[in-house]
Amino acid sequence: MTRPRLALVPGEPAGVGPELCVRLAQQPRTDCHLVALADPATLQAAADALRLPLNLLPAQQPARAPGDLPLHAVPNAAGVAFGRPDPGNAAAVVAALHQAADGCMDGTFAGMVTGPVHKATINQGGIAYTGTTELLAAHAGCEVVMMLANDIVRVALATTHLPLRKVADAIDAALLRQVLRITHAALRTGFGIADPVIAVLGLNPHAGEDGHLGHEEIEILAPVLEQLRGEGMHLVGPLPADTAFLPGKLRGFDTVLAMYHDQGLPVLKYSGFEQAVNLTLGLPYPRVAVDHGTALDLAGRGMADPSSLEAAVATCARLAAQRATA
Amino acid sequence: MTRPRLALVPGEPAGVGPELCVRLAQQPRTDCHLVALADPATLQAAADALRLPLNLLPAQQPARAPGDLPLHAVPNAAGVAFGRPDPGNAAAVVAALHQAADGCMDGTFAGMVTGPVHKATINQGGIAYTGTTELLAAHAGCEVVMMLANDIVRVALATTHLPLRKVADAIDAALLRQVLRITHAALRTGFGIADPVIAVLGLNPHAGEDGHLGHEEIEILAPVLEQLRGEGMHLVGPLPADTAFLPGKLRGFDTVLAMYHDQGLPVLKYSGFEQAVNLTLGLPYPRVAVDHGTALDLAGRGMADPSSLEAAVATCARLAAQRATA
Repeated sequence: MTRPRLALVPGEPAGVGPELCVRLAQQPRTDCHLVALADPATLQAAADALRLPLNLLPAQQPARAPGDLPLHAVPNAAGVAFGRPDPGNAAAVVAALHQAADGCMDGTFAGMVTGPVHKATINQGGIAYTGTTELLAAHAGCEVVMMLANDIVRVALATTHLPLRKVADAIDAALLRQVLRITHAALRTGFGIADPVIAVLGLNPHAGEDGHLGHEEIEILAPVLEQLRGEGMHLVGPLPADTAFLPGKLRGFDTVLAMYHDQGLPVLKYSGFEQAVNLTLGLPYPRVAVDHGTALDLAGRGMADPSSLEAAVATCARLAAQRATA
Repeated sequence: MTRPRLALVPGEPAGVGPELCVRLAQQPRTDCHLVALADPATLQAAADALRLPLNLLPAQQPARAPGDLPLHAVPNAAGVAFGRPDPGNAAAVVAALHQAADGCMDGTFAGMVTGPVHKATINQGGIAYTGTTELLAAHAGCEVVMMLANDIVRVALATTHLPLRKVADAIDAALLRQVLRITHAALRTGFGIADPVIAVLGLNPHAGEDGHLGHEEIEILAPVLEQLRGEGMHLVGPLPADTAFLPGKLRGFDTVLAMYHDQGLPVLKYSGFEQAVNLTLGLPYPRVAVDHGTALDLAGRGMADPSSLEAAVATCARLAAQRATA
């Protein structure tokens, strides 16, 4: 089997993304070929700051030695000072994401791995941006689901970055059906799980306790689950969120679908933050991101932990290989 | 130092509470004297079902041998069939709680440990009941805070059993001040922590991300925290809930204050459900409960895990001893 070629987008150039890519390039890989979509001077500056070797290669030339990194150049408009994001480079950050997405859709790449983007800087640069997940969904013209995963648990989110007071009204039957269908399909085709078991959390404490603590479970969640079970999905719930994550129960679930951000992510991060990755389900290609921010205070200092980027690449390589055999 | 005398209330007689009390009575204790407030026939039936010795003693007589259990009798109105709660016994369940509370307030007991109560059965018995925490607060005429704790983390809740759509409006400055003052005082006097560090979670994902994901952190939480810091409290936050529970951070907090049930409890239960206990802060006495339900399907079968009741007794004994020295 040929190794999948993955697009590697560092994200915010003044953050830890470039140096994490340089560190990744120090280790020979057997699971994929990585091609960075980035500004060459920025990568070189990161390598210099960390005193690590870096040999930027043409995009088609495979890496052979520590420090080799195939590059598709996406030049920054402004120089980079680590720790100080420049809105003048917002367009280059977004261009790298768009070019990586184009490459995934035209078959140049088999998947995309992304570093952390600095939301405020992109917006200050005059580009409306709420997140890379949303940007890639709009670019591909499809609905997506955000999933966070580590070795212990995969958590999919029905709603993501929404003020808490808006969550209850955002959960309706149409959204739930869409999220469950995308998640179910991704577990089958992306992860190769023939009959995935998805645990669905209730919206309310104790999953509403038979209507005493809220009615959404009875009126919305249970009927949707019943309908989709009729279509062959293996769904458990709606479950009380506090006990759904008990280790003994978790082992029986391929994914937990949380209704909102802070219901699903604390256990995910507690149980293994460093190895956690952020997946976008529903795109026509695998996309995996780091589960951390730009860490501007650490940038250029060689102190950032590459575990999440390493896990993101390994996960994306597995998903790409799985798709190739599906 | 004399050992504190603690009231032990089994809760729902048809649940696992009675047999857990019988199992507890098999182990001699050095940290406290336990006095059960319960129906003697029910305790005997639980002992018989588990084939364990049980010697019910007068309430003032100390336990000396395995199976000894001092008893203050609170007779049930109806016979007990394990697994089948009888609303006819609702009054006895509530009477035992009230008598234990009276004993705590008049100095007969130094604290109270409670087993699981079956909410629906109490209500079917014609007694308005939303939870033992609320019942004891009303009986003592004070405001309380619910805290769940295990060896890893203590989580206090700003709101408890509320439908999710009502949470945002329930969080106001007056409530937050009250909850933080009760929690802070309890950590000092109950737990003997001179200068407790309390981490306060935001209401919204990413703690509102500077107002992009909600305004309650800026408008309500931050000003309250600032005010209470001015009164000498050591408060951290408002913090994003997903990363506040990272193990390295948790070690720096004496308590995490979550804004609502499913934000705070999944990590607590994931990280150590069996040893978790439920504390009521703000009462004039220590009260600790098991962190599990009546488990009707297990009742009378000897399969219920006594770890949480054991942890509740040990915790209550520590808190009572701490109060005695304060």
